[in-house]
Amino acid sequence: MSDVLVVGSLAFDSIRTPHGEVEEEPGGAATYFSLAASRFADVNLVGVVGGDFDSGLLSSMEASGIDLEGLKVIEDEKTFRWKGYYESDLEAQTEKTELNVFADFDPDLPPEYCETPYVFLGNIDPEIQLSVLEQMDNTRVTACDTMNFWIDSKPEALNRVLEQIDIFFLNSSEAEMMTGEANLITAAQKLRQRGPSIVIIKKGEHGVFMVGHDWQFVLPGFPVGLVQDPTGAGDSFGGGFMGYLAGTESDDFTALKHALVHGNIVASFTVQEFGVRRLLELEEWDIDERYQRFVRLTHFDL
Amino acid sequence: MSDVLVVGSLAFDSIRTPHGEVEEEPGGAATYFSLAASRFADVNLVGVVGGDFDSGLLSSMEASGIDLEGLKVIEDEKTFRWKGYYESDLEAQTEKTELNVFADFDPDLPPEYCETPYVFLGNIDPEIQLSVLEQMDNTRVTACDTMNFWIDSKPEALNRVLEQIDIFFLNSSEAEMMTGEANLITAAQKLRQRGPSIVIIKKGEHGVFMVGHDWQFVLPGFPVGLVQDPTGAGDSFGGGFMGYLAGTESDDFTALKHALVHGNIVASFTVQEFGVRRLLELEEWDIDERYQRFVRLTHFDL
Repeated sequence: MSDVLVVGSLAFDSIRTPHGEVEEEPGGAATYFSLAASRFADVNLVGVVGGDFDSGLLSSMEASGIDLEGLKVIEDEKTFRWKGYYESDLEAQTEKTELNVFADFDPDLPPEYCETPYVFLGNIDPEIQLSVLEQMDNTRVTACDTMNFWIDSKPEALNRVLEQIDIFFLNSSEAEMMTGEANLITAAQKLRQRGPSIVIIKKGEHGVFMVGHDWQFVLPGFPVGLVQDPTGAGDSFGGGFMGYLAGTESDDFTALKHALVHGNIVASFTVQEFGVRRLLELEEWDIDERYQRFVRLTHFDL
Repeated sequence: MSDVLVVGSLAFDSIRTPHGEVEEEPGGAATYFSLAASRFADVNLVGVVGGDFDSGLLSSMEASGIDLEGLKVIEDEKTFRWKGYYESDLEAQTEKTELNVFADFDPDLPPEYCETPYVFLGNIDPEIQLSVLEQMDNTRVTACDTMNFWIDSKPEALNRVLEQIDIFFLNSSEAEMMTGEANLITAAQKLRQRGPSIVIIKKGEHGVFMVGHDWQFVLPGFPVGLVQDPTGAGDSFGGGFMGYLAGTESDDFTALKHALVHGNIVASFTVQEFGVRRLLELEEWDIDERYQRFVRLTHFDL
């Protein structure tokens, strides 16, 4: 088993969905990612919080095998905050973002983090993603995520990130935004030409599409009867994916497919409750059972 | 091998997509359906055209094993016409509909059609669907499709159809419209309570979701690099599905899954060219090859 390093946000989220509402729920891309990845591998977390962040959650994260030496705690400042809502189409609508401690985030990695073999650059400023990559040595698989804000505001820095990574995660509207192509096959091939050998396009409830040099792989979403809160689904997916790869110390096609399935499954649990609540309760047999159900739900050539 | 009966429209379509434009292209739900189904079973077609319909296409259809005794040709009238376009989201936008011969369509089935075991009531007035059902005897599997126009204008007739059929095909926006449920699992269960034991929700490029009494099955769309024209994808899917079932004379879970896969595959060919052009050229080895590719694209537990 290898370790995974993740850099990204920890946050308080205020979320309204058709099924309820929470205020200041602990979340953030790196929180979802690391809790998901920790089911399969040890995690080195790089991020920043204020003195107000949930210390109980941090203890639970450490107990799950998430190393927090790379987490900077600025006692007299406030944690990053996001407020938003979802309507029935499950697209996030932002009402308010407060950067707080994130405004000056410039991570300085603990020396023992710098040779972590599996690296995930969460959806943050691509210049910070570049700074983390520069501090890394001997990586085996590097991946990054991004969002419309960075695609728009820092396209050149993002392109420099893409030149240096192996796997690029993004959602379908971002893929269209970056390439002008609504067709996912064409969009993925155009994105691969910018550097990453593998492109993974997330389609929300419709699943995920993975494209490599001479292969493609596609999974439907795991059907969930009641989506309480879509927040963190993509980050949980990334965490399940990278954690699974690191856990098997592999990156061949079979490992990539299984990683995709495990990312999908972990994300399907995340959305069933608000915030990271369901992720914190997730047991190995939950994942195994849903894996078997996913085989029965999707395999026809048995 | 059993036969499939289909009732539905034959039409001239004028279509504009991001990849081109055609005028008066022969199409219609029953045309797509029967060409797709004829790859796997013999088809009895019930419909109506004017004297202007494409006689070359009708000959090709007969040569493919589609019986046209149930097709009424009204020599001095005009065939049904549809004009519309698709933008990059591939949702059909109607510009003009001319009912023509379809305005007074009231099918009177040839006696030898009345015991066709597999029946597909294409997307037409639910009162016509009911009239066809009344003429049928000893059916094995009956299925129907519909659209927003009938859901809105004839909900009671549609409910009477649902009480009498086994399989209900509809797309995800129609499922939400009929049940008020955006979640497909919940929507499908509510629709099953109205009669059909199986509900098949079509999600366009995102594939298809099938729900029965105590099982679900889900397939992603077959990834197509260039969608020239989405017209007829749903009808080709239905034709591939029902034709496959009739061809195997079966309706168990394995047959239903394979029928879904073959519907998906036939539809993936349809959209690669305008109208029924690709369907007319489709060879058995095309389907076999895409079946094997679909296994490799989707199966992880091998």
